[in-house]
Amino acid sequence: MDISSVKALTFDVFGTVVDWRSAVLREGRALGKQKGLSVDWVEFADAWRAGYEPFMQRVRTGELPWTNIDALHRMILDELLVRFQIAGLSEAEKEHLNRVWRRLDPWPDVREGLARLRRRFLVAPLSNGNIALLTHMAKRADLRWDCILSSELARRYKPDAEVYLTAARLLGLRPQQIMMVAAHNADLLAAKAVGFRAAFVYRTREYGPSQTTDLAPDPAVDIVARDFAELADIMA
Amino acid sequence: MDISSVKALTFDVFGTVVDWRSAVLREGRALGKQKGLSVDWVEFADAWRAGYEPFMQRVRTGELPWTNIDALHRMILDELLVRFQIAGLSEAEKEHLNRVWRRLDPWPDVREGLARLRRRFLVAPLSNGNIALLTHMAKRADLRWDCILSSELARRYKPDAEVYLTAARLLGLRPQQIMMVAAHNADLLAAKAVGFRAAFVYRTREYGPSQTTDLAPDPAVDIVARDFAELADIMA
Repeated sequence: MDISSVKALTFDVFGTVVDWRSAVLREGRALGKQKGLSVDWVEFADAWRAGYEPFMQRVRTGELPWTNIDALHRMILDELLVRFQIAGLSEAEKEHLNRVWRRLDPWPDVREGLARLRRRFLVAPLSNGNIALLTHMAKRADLRWDCILSSELARRYKPDAEVYLTAARLLGLRPQQIMMVAAHNADLLAAKAVGFRAAFVYRTREYGPSQTTDLAPDPAVDIVARDFAELADIMA
Repeated sequence: MDISSVKALTFDVFGTVVDWRSAVLREGRALGKQKGLSVDWVEFADAWRAGYEPFMQRVRTGELPWTNIDALHRMILDELLVRFQIAGLSEAEKEHLNRVWRRLDPWPDVREGLARLRRRFLVAPLSNGNIALLTHMAKRADLRWDCILSSELARRYKPDAEVYLTAARLLGLRPQQIMMVAAHNADLLAAKAVGFRAAFVYRTREYGPSQTTDLAPDPAVDIVARDFAELADIMA
């Protein structure tokens, strides 16, 4: 692929940039210990993440009005607290737990790879996470984006085309000048459908040791990289 | 003023963070020399800036559909090229000149003051400049914002209330938790009208040595600072 026309890289975040599962597990376990709870936190973390797609679907279909991810995460959490019989949390404790999604750590290759890519390209998240979530996450994790882009700015969720097109409009670029970077084929194929380039990065442990999805790139993607270091090598 | 509830600072950019006049003068003069043009670049720079408010007003009234600042700057520039009899520029040269607004330098106190403020608060521009413009400017000038906010996200121009309210919504904060920082009273009063706090920073040479506006803060503002260093002192 000729990358000379690429001016900006937009990144999926949950799973691609940050390891959501480890942080949710870590904070869940710490809370469980502190509160004397008996909860399977692996199951809890996976259930929280699994709730995300059906809730976004309720927004897509109009069953819910536009609702950002902070609020969707909270709606899912409130169900999980019942299901996992987690009682005795104050409102402030629930809200703190909900904001664990702002306290996710990047995969070990991210900071340096991103810094290298940033020398040549505009770099921005393009996540279903909302602006406030992504901003707090970047600040805490010291991720140096050039700007923060989010599905929230289109008031639609990926993989809806409007999300990618809104990002291109805000960056003042044609879709062909932007490369979407993700560990998820569906995101990349949707980006490609509106003209973006697509780079697949392997994150085969995002869902833990028994992950079954996105273990390999779709043949349609333009670039495949083992991690952000290799992506920076390829794009150098 | 009790600042303990303030979580984020949003900044006016043109004039408050960056010195637009010097850069437009500098690049205009260089272009004039290169092209052998006889133009009063002081008058040109001031006329370009002066065109900004009436053009935004045409968007506000609906005479123009939503048009971002990159595009408004270009419409004004095209008029000025005729008025100042600047001929012989290629389309690429015109577009490069138009993007001088992405190549503005911060006032000397900005970088360090901003870095200090950023330790305690979320910091973001909230400018009539569009996202692409602000992103390129920040990257070139090494301004480390936590995220980039713009009137463009509300598709309205300051001082319309929707701009400030959209910023608050995207930051996930109440207006009372945000302080607008500007060298312009109109911007601060509009922010205050929707509940923001307001900090006036003196920029009495923004319009050159004979500036007549915004030489002193409106009595309604919450904080007055000589520059970003003093603002960081006050907010420490």
